[in-house]
Order: sequence, then C-alpha cells, then structure tokens
Amino acid sequence: MFKLAGIYAPIATAFKDGEIAYEELRSNLEKWEKTSLAGLVVLGSNGEFVLLDEDEKVKLTAFVRENFSSEKPVIAGTGCESTGATIRLTKSCAEVGVDAVLVLTPTYYKGSMTDEALNGFFQEVADASPVPVILYNMPRNTGVNMSVPLVTALSKHPNIIGIKDSSGNIVQIAGILAETDPDFSVFAGSGSFLYASLCLGATGGTLAVANILPNQCHRILELYNAGEYTKAKEIQFRILEANAAVTAKWGVAGLKAAMDMMGYYGGEVRKPLQELLEDNKKELKLILKQWDPNDKKD
Amino acid sequence: MFKLAGIYAPIATAFKDGEIAYEELRSNLEKWEKTSLAGLVVLGSNGEFVLLDEDEKVKLTAFVRENFSSEKPVIAGTGCESTGATIRLTKSCAEVGVDAVLVLTPTYYKGSMTDEALNGFFQEVADASPVPVILYNMPRNTGVNMSVPLVTALSKHPNIIGIKDSSGNIVQIAGILAETDPDFSVFAGSGSFLYASLCLGATGGTLAVANILPNQCHRILELYNAGEYTKAKEIQFRILEANAAVTAKWGVAGLKAAMDMMGYYGGEVRKPLQELLEDNKKELKLILKQWDPNDKKD
Amino acid sequence: MFKLAGIYAPIATAFKDGEIAYEELRSNLEKWEKTSLAGLVVLGSNGEFVLLDEDEKVKLTAFVRENFSSEKPVIAGTGCESTGATIRLTKSCAEVGVDAVLVLTPTYYKGSMTDEALNGFFQEVADASPVPVILYNMPRNTGVNMSVPLVTALSKHPNIIGIKDSSGNIVQIAGILAETDPDFSVFAGSGSFLYASLCLGATGGTLAVANILPNQCHRILELYNAGEYTKAKEIQFRILEANAAVTAKWGVAGLKAAMDMMGYYGGEVRKPLQELLEDNKKELKLILKQWDPNDKKD
Amino acid sequence: MFKLAGIYAPIATAFKDGEIAYEELRSNLEKWEKTSLAGLVVLGSNGEFVLLDEDEKVKLTAFVRENFSSEKPVIAGTGCESTGATIRLTKSCAEVGVDAVLVLTPTYYKGSMTDEALNGFFQEVADASPVPVILYNMPRNTGVNMSVPLVTALSKHPNIIGIKDSSGNIVQIAGILAETDPDFSVFAGSGSFLYASLCLGATGGTLAVANILPNQCHRILELYNAGEYTKAKEIQFRILEANAAVTAKWGVAGLKAAMDMMGYYGGEVRKPLQELLEDNKKELKLILKQWDPNDKKD
Repeated sequence: MFKLAGIYAPIATAFKDGEIAYEELRSNLEKWEKTSLAGLVVLGSNGEFVLLDEDEKVKLTAFVRENFSSEKPVIAGTGCESTGATIRLTKSCAEVGVDAVLVLTPTYYKGSMTDEALNGFFQEVADASPVPVILYNMPRNTGVNMSVPLVTALSKHPNIIGIKDSSGNIVQIAGILAETDPDFSVFAGSGSFLYASLCLGATGGTLAVANILPNQCHRILELYNAGEYTKAKEIQFRILEANAAVTAKWGVAGLKAAMDMMGYYGGEVRKPLQELLEDNKKELKLILKQWDPNDKKD
Repeated sequence: MFKLAGIYAPIATAFKDGEIAYEELRSNLEKWEKTSLAGLVVLGSNGEFVLLDEDEKVKLTAFVRENFSSEKPVIAGTGCESTGATIRLTKSCAEVGVDAVLVLTPTYYKGSMTDEALNGFFQEVADASPVPVILYNMPRNTGVNMSVPLVTALSKHPNIIGIKDSSGNIVQIAGILAETDPDFSVFAGSGSFLYASLCLGATGGTLAVANILPNQCHRILELYNAGEYTKAKEIQFRILEANAAVTAKWGVAGLKAAMDMMGYYGGEVRKPLQELLEDNKKELKLILKQWDPNDKKD
Repeated sequence: MFKLAGIYAPIATAFKDGEIAYEELRSNLEKWEKTSLAGLVVLGSNGEFVLLDEDEKVKLTAFVRENFSSEKPVIAGTGCESTGATIRLTKSCAEVGVDAVLVLTPTYYKGSMTDEALNGFFQEVADASPVPVILYNMPRNTGVNMSVPLVTALSKHPNIIGIKDSSGNIVQIAGILAETDPDFSVFAGSGSFLYASLCLGATGGTLAVANILPNQCHRILELYNAGEYTKAKEIQFRILEANAAVTAKWGVAGLKAAMDMMGYYGGEVRKPLQELLEDNKKELKLILKQWDPNDKKD
Repeated sequence: MFKLAGIYAPIATAFKDGEIAYEELRSNLEKWEKTSLAGLVVLGSNGEFVLLDEDEKVKLTAFVRENFSSEKPVIAGTGCESTGATIRLTKSCAEVGVDAVLVLTPTYYKGSMTDEALNGFFQEVADASPVPVILYNMPRNTGVNMSVPLVTALSKHPNIIGIKDSSGNIVQIAGILAETDPDFSVFAGSGSFLYASLCLGATGGTLAVANILPNQCHRILELYNAGEYTKAKEIQFRILEANAAVTAKWGVAGLKAAMDMMGYYGGEVRKPLQELLEDNKKELKLILKQWDPNDKKD
C-alpha cells in the first residue's frame, strides 16, 4: 500500500491571464522531477485550490499526474465543505490516477465541527475513497483544529494512512505520534517545524518552501535519517526565513514571487489574492539571495 | 432603486434524502409569504450555501424567486472564494430575478484579506453585478472582518447599497453608520442585536430567528419605528434565548429543529452537519414554548 | 443605598518623575468638579492601577475622596488577583470613604476562572465589603469574560449593585439587562457604546473619554433621557474617534497626551508604558481639534 | 557565571489555612533535593506568585534558598506589572540569595506591550538586577508574546542569560535558537515540548510536571544527551498525559492534587483558585497510576 514519506511540494497552480497556464506548469513539473522531491501535492492551500472550479480541479490533477514522473506519487487535495462534494472530487481525482487524497476539514461551520461531526465526515470520505486518505489539519486557514483523540480514532480506519498537520502545534504532533500506530504517518505541514517533527517521528512533510528549495528540504530529511543531526538542524535554522516569506508573511503571492526568482514559473495569483508589492519583492530577493536552487549540497 | 429595509429571513434550505426538497420548500415559502417579512435571503449562512453545488444554487434561487410573492424582494448570497466565481454566480442569480446579491468576504486566505484585497474584490464584483450588491460581514464563520474604513470606502460605489453586519460589534456598526451616507443601509445580521442596531440607525435585519418568528422580529422594527421603545425592547429581550438557540448555540441544526417545532419544514441538515441531539431538542422545545408562530401581537 | 447612574470618569493617575503628582491631580479634580460628571472612579484601568503599590493605591484614593466634592461619589477599583488581597484593599478604600468599589475579575489564571470560581470570588468579596460592589468585566485586558448567567447570579447578592461592562459585547449587555432586576445597574465601560447601552437600559457609564470630554459624554445621557435621540446619537457618532484615540488605539498614553491638550494635567505614564510618539501626538491633536473642553452645548 | 541548564521544578507554594505552610514546604524541599533536579524556581506560575503579597514573596524565597541544597541553584520569579516593582522585587530576591531571576512580561496593558515597550522593560530590569535575568514568555496566561526579534535583541544584554518559553510555539523556539548566540540558553516551559526543544538546542526546562516526576523529566534530558533518542522520546510520549493534567487541563489545582498523590505536600490552592473536584481527582489518580515517584529508571 501507498506509504507517506519523504518531502512533497504542495505545488503552486500556474496562472496566466486568469486561466491555468498548462505549459508553464509543465515546465515547472519538469524541474521538480529532477529534484529530490518524493512527490507532489496538487490542489493544496498553496495551489489556490479554493479559487479553482471543480472542472479545473480535475483537469489540473489529471495534467499533473500525466506530466510528472509515474514513479513518483501525486496526491490531490479534495476537501470541500460538504461530505458529498468531497467524495465526488475524491473519486474524480482517483480516476485520473492520484495515489492518495489529502482531505481538509470543512471550515465554514466552525462552531458545528465537533470531533463527532469531523469523525463522521472523515469516516464517510474514507469509506468511499478508492485511494488512501490523508487527513489535513490547517487551523490557521480553517479555524478548525483536529484534536489528538479525533486523529487517533480516525487512524484506525484502514483507508486513512496519515495526517498533514499544519498547525505547528508540536504538543499535538507529539500526542498524535504517541497515540497512533507506527503505520500511521505524520507529515509536517510547513518547513518551519520539519526538523522538530522528524525528531518526534514524522516521516516527512509537504512544505510550501519545497516548491523553491526542494533539495534543501530533502537534505534536512536525509541528514536526519543519517543521524547527522547538527547538520540537519543547521539547514532547518537557515531555511526559517525563506519559509516564513512564502507562508505566514506573504502567503501564495510570496511563494509565486519567490518561484519567479528561483527559476520556476510563479506568475499571477488568482483574485482576490493580490500580487506582492515591489518593496516586498526587494525584501524577498534579499532573503533568497543565499540560496542556490540547483544546490544539492548542505 | 432597490432599498434595503425591513426584516428578512435568511431561509433554511429544505433537504430530503440528501437532495433539495422543493415541495417542502414551497410550503415554507407560502407560510413566509403570509408573515410580515419584507423579503427573503436565499443562499445565506443559514441556507447551508457552502454545502450546495453551483447548479443547485442557481436552481434553488430561481425556485424561490418564482414561488415567493413577486412584490417582495428576494436576495441571493453569491460570495465565493474567488472573484471570478463570485461574479459568475452573481450574474446567474441576477438572471433568475433576484433583487440584490449579498456578497460574503472570501475566507480561506484570511492572512491575505487586507482591506486593500477586500476593496479590490468588492469593487470588481460591484462593477460586474447587474443588481445591487450588499456587503456581508460574518467574522465568526469567516475569520475575516470588514473594517469601518473599508466599508466606508465601498459605500461610495453606486452599486453597493448596504451591509449585513453579523459581527455583533456594535462599535463597528456605530462607526459605519457614522461614516457612511444615509442612503447606505445597515442591516443587523442577527436577532440578538437588532434593537441596538435600529437605535443607531439600521433599517432592519436579516435574521436566522426570522425563519421561525418572523412576525415577532418585524414587531420589534414596527414598534421601534412607532417610537414604542419600551415595548420593542421587551420583545428584543424575550427573543434573545430563541435567537441564541438557532444561531451560536446549535447552528443550522438548531434552526431546522426549531422550524419543525414551529410549523415549518425543517428536516435534515446536509453532511457534515449533524442533526440536533434528542436532549437538545427537548431543551429547544422548552425555549420555544412561549412563542406562538401565528401571533402578530406583542 | 448608593445608586449607580450618570457619567463617571475613570480618572488618570497623575505622575511626575515616577511618583504620584498630588498637586497636579488636585488641579484636575478641581476641573472635573465643575463638569457634569456624576462622580469619579479611581484605580481603574485608565488609572494605571496595576502599576501602583498597595500603599499608593490607598493614599491616592484617600486624596481623591478628600479633594473632590463630597456631594459626588468616588468609586475605587479594588480587584486584585487573590480574593484576600481584594478584600483587604476593598476595606482600606472603604475606610477612606469611597462610596462603592469596582471589582475586576482576576486575570492571570484565565483557564481556571470558570463561572464557579468567579462566583466564589465575587460572593466572598461582596460579603466582606463594607460598601457596595460593582462588577468589572474587562476581557480585552484580562482575557476573562463574565457570562450572562454568572452576572445574573451575582446580581442577587444584596451588596452587588451593578456591573461596568467594558466588553462592548452588546448581546451580552442586552442579556444582562434582560435577566437582572431593575435595581441592578449596568454601566457602559467605554464611550464607544454608551448610546447603544443606554437604549437597552444602562444607567450611565464610566468612560475613559470622560476624562477629557465630560460634558459631552454627559450630554449624550441627558439628551437620551430627554427623548432627544437623534441629537444624542449625533454626539455619540462624533465622539467615536476621540474615544478610540484614548482607548483601543493609543491606550493610557493617548489619554494622557489628550489631557495635556485639553487643559488637564496628563503628564507621564508609568513604565513599562511608553509616552505617545510625536507623530501620534500630531494625529491626536487633529482628532481633538473639533472639541472645546469647556463646551456644554450639543 | 551562572549557566541555565538541566531540569528545574517551578515549585508549588504550600498553603495551609490560607497561609504559607513552611513546614510542609520544607518537607517537599527535602524530597526534591534527593531527586535529579538541577534546581528550583520559586514564585513561578505554578507557585501562585500572583496570589502572594510582596512580603510573602521575599520571605518565601529566602526560606527556599535557606532550606534547599546550597549547591543547587534557586531562581525567583520577579516579574510585576510595573518596571519599578519588578526591579524592587528583583533586588529583594537577590539579597536573599537567588542565583537568577525569571522575569515575566507585564500583562495587563497587552495592547501597549509592543516589542519596543517590552525591550525597554527588560533592558531596565536587567541593568538594575544584581543577578542574571532569564526572560519568561507565557502567552497563555499573559496574552503577550515575545517575538523572535525582541528576544534576539535582549539576548545581547550581558545580564540576560536565557529564556523560559512556555508558548509551546516550536517555530518561535527554533527561531530564537537560530538567531541567538550559543551562550544564551533556551528552556522549555512545559514538559509537553521538552524533547522537541532539546532536539533544537534547548539546554533543559522548568516544568510543572517536574514537581511530581523530577527524575523522569531529568531522564529525558540525560537520555537525549547520551544520544539515546528513542528511549528519551518514549518517556516524552508517556509523560504527555500527566503533564497535561497538571497544566492546561486542571492547572495548579491539578498539580497540587497530584503532589498529594505522589508523596509530596500539595494541599490547598489560594482563592480564587478552587480545589480539584472529586471526580477529577479519580481521573487524575488513573493517569498517575503508571508512575512511581521514586523511580529513576526509564
């Protein structure tokens, strides 16, 4: 069965004149294919998935699957607000060949998203999904948090294989790793706490910053696995600033501007998101100066 | 031009076996038509709009418009995450005859929803909309708040005619009323602060509780307009508990259970929402006991 | 018995060279005595009470009581973290002649401040206090909120006569007024929601902005009581900006700078608070330009 | 110079009939002295410091210093709301022999506690303190967070030697370790993220749970330092539940009940804190069942 491990990039969706720019995306895919990335996530938060229509989502997923190494997994983000829409999109993405789906918690009715409601949601999606399901906890964007008892309960489902935790709550991550079986994989949801998560038992991460620094992110994992903790930690520390720039600080606009600077096609964000301001781009350039996108060394 | 005033019910969407139950909805529409409601809002938070597909949204809106008094306005909630999808749904709803659209702020990329981004979003939607636009501020569900300066700036747009503020932040409501022109209407977004909002200059409200107590909600407005402040306030105080039960306390499941108790079709919620527990239903029944749905008296 | 009504100023504590400046304070007291203020609150949030030692608190309270019209009430803020310290300070302030005490919720152990713990705290303080007790809810500074059921329960205590609610949560204020007896007074805790609170049944307020615009604040109340709602609301709207400047926006430093501009002694804040920056002082001056401190007109 | 390293217990303050129970405290000190604890913190959050008067604080600190091994450091928590009171208490505690002081951020005027204000506060305290200063970041109780740039700036002060970070924000902890010099020590502020903090470079922690499981907490550190990561992590995982019980879940009341169960004197909490309910005590007993307080093994 599919095993969640390694460094994944939750890829940005390339746009041009408001539409998905498939040729530019293909060029990015070719570049990512040559990196140490274990696989890709399409339709993630960094992929502006909420700004895509259902048709676009499926077409985009099919395109990424077709145009990326068939030896490397592609995972699709298929969480929607309703259970029904989530199952429908999950099936569509499974049909076009994804290896697993990453399912975000519903977000709008926060007050009603009790552990019980979330348990019902994920059990039903996992029952219906033709491919393995990965839980996706992203409280900063959703206002909903998946508790340790909830994740532990869901980890018993044979079709739920892991969680991407973007909360950055290291106590919660420890709790999940303490309570779940070893075959349930925990993935860091941001490059800022990758190393700490590995130390606790995470098997990798799906990291916005891996769009631009895939080899460096992978190097943290590789060094960690080799017992080279000091070196791994040193890269983790160095990567913090670039990671913040493409996530909490400037969001998807920061990520896309950084991609443009690092040899990828970043291009437009979709509205209502706004391009990064020129002053911020200058600041970003300084932050990225120390990084060579082609470097595999530590 | 359309003027936003009076009491609106943001109607619940009737479901049966997971699908929209048009006959049951028609029956509800007939009942609401006989009340003092000024109009209806379809596709609001209480209408489980995020749980409906785009096709369902348009078909539902068309049905409500066709089956509700043509002398009374119907407003559709058309806010989506992307500017493009919002404009598309706005146009579709305008085509089926709504009098105005209620446009929620985007929610997922909270960290990027600066005043500037929100201003761009609403200006573009208002430019493109064939019908008047009403701003919809609902921070409890979205995690995004519309500031007084933002609302004031948007109020200058000729096609933006008002705001439904569900924040309950009375200082913000006062600020909006202080800074905007008299032809910009402010609507209370919950029955819990209707009276306070009227005192500051609001022209009405669109209130979950108006699904079940439309005449009583209207009576608050009517008494207020007649200068009968003590009586108006007395109903406002009495209505607080029922209002909380169908909003903050039990959400849409509470509203639908209350509708079943008050002679409307409430029925199912759509998953992942969950039905109200039996114990809570008993508690709800006690709360509603004092109210006669057919009563127009104070 | 003492009845809580009218406009109170929660007076700033005058400092010079780090010590309480009694002569400057006396001068302020003389000015406030000539205004329409119903009374004063000493040792409130605007009085930097947490920055005063216990000895200073009692001495300051005694001084204010001695140097302010004996016909007008003086209330002292006596809330401390421990029940014992609160009772001790309450008794000391009662001995020097205050008419009532304003008791803030404990704040540090937020997670333990359940309704039950808070009920125990206030009951014990009220039992021991020689003077009437006023509850003080200030969640923005304390991180603790007093719920409607808690306040309702406490309102039954014969020595608890009212609440100063600084939450600005108008639904909560409505709930308290709906649930408590008419002899329990509700006071607005900020000038930004004074008018809305009066409309719901509040009897007045204790307002930072009343340090600098006492007559204007009182005028809102006077006009409201005279049924001149439009005029009252107009002053409420006009006062919002000045109110924000001396509270949420710039805090005590803003209040003291404003006092200096309006003919009072503002002077230093105590460390770690910091003086207002020069740029902000210019902005503040513009905000205050429209107000004449000696004006009693509307 | 004093170097911050190892496991410290932020000791509970023993009370009997509302007063400090020195004999019971002496008995606890004798027990802690025989454990692997590196030292003690008096007047911490678990020591109910905000519920103690200034005189009690100094007397208690002197007593602990006199009655605990002179070879092991004692640190006193001396943060107060005002800079002046903090310096005064710092000097008093230094006089009675503490090795360092742990200085909490001011909390009440949250909105004014900018990085600049906090920088001024800590610089002034560090200048005046006769003993080394340790920063104390505890946002859950204070509502104030110390940012990475602030901590980095303060770490340059020759008399500021480290930070106890109780935020549990592992990205922030990583950032501090990345930006500060190696002679600036970072301490985990809770047993729940001790291991993760060690992996990033922390030198130890001051942990509520170390009041009851001092040897086990020390064992995590010892195993980590010996490169026995799997074993260290295993204890970290096992300790999570007990740690939660004496911190986030039941607070000081939970800690004191646990002390009573583990052979220490726990006794009363001071009001307004409330004793643990009987049902919770039963639950706590089950949680603690697996732990032998005298065990030094892993």
